Amino acid sequence: MTARQIADAYLATWNAADAQACAALLDRHWTRDAEYVDPMVAAAGTAQIGATIAAVRERFPGFAFTLLGEPDGHGDHVRLRWTLGPAGVPAPIEGSDVITVRDGRIDRVVGFLDRVPAEA
Amino acid sequence: MTARQIADAYLATWNAADAQACAALLDRHWTRDAEYVDPMVAAAGTAQIGATIAAVRERFPGFAFTLLGEPDGHGDHVRLRWTLGPAGVPAPIEGSDVITVRDGRIDRVVGFLDRVPAEA
Repeated sequence: MTARQIADAYLATWNAADAQACAALLDRHWTRDAEYVDPMVAAAGTAQIGATIAAVRERFPGFAFTLLGEPDGHGDHVRLRWTLGPAGVPAPIEGSDVITVRDGRIDRVVGFLDRVPAEA
Repeated sequence: MTARQIADAYLATWNAADAQACAALLDRHWTRDAEYVDPMVAAAGTAQIGATIAAVRERFPGFAFTLLGEPDGHGDHVRLRWTLGPAGVPAPIEGSDVITVRDGRIDRVVGFLDRVPAEA
């Protein structure tokens, strides 16, 4: 898989419409014992990661993650930038994530926030 | 240790004047089985990482790594941006690294290049 394909699979998981779609994408694209960590949360395993994604989906209804720029990668590592916001307006939230892949699946993610509005 | 302290220890290792100084900094600030990976090289253990740093020192004599902006971090993770260039002129090379710390030491580094001149 290319850096772009991994980034697309990753953001598709975050953009899943509901818990069932999210679980299907976690099952397809992530390792079972994947780890996700960002400044707010640490989640281990696809069940915890699914709950983390659900919490963001509920906090920001109608928002979507969009790839910002082009992902790049080397070896098992991919970095990407993203925005999070409602459709059709400038996205208020931006971040950068580094993904480590194992056996073609997302295995470890370290996320950072690049822009957060004061009210978020 | 703060994100800034970890970033400073990391770049000090890269800026070591010679192999002996580098080995001392690796011994002080890195885990023995630390792993370093960037688009050109993967090194496992402080001996291989020291050799990687020596290769850069020999390829770019008189160049120094300088912190660009302010590092940020959460949990065991720190990200920083750096420049590499000769003293007193605009640095031609820039990168971003994500460091994972274990027991207060640098344990894993995933590096990315942000700007590389065509001739490098």
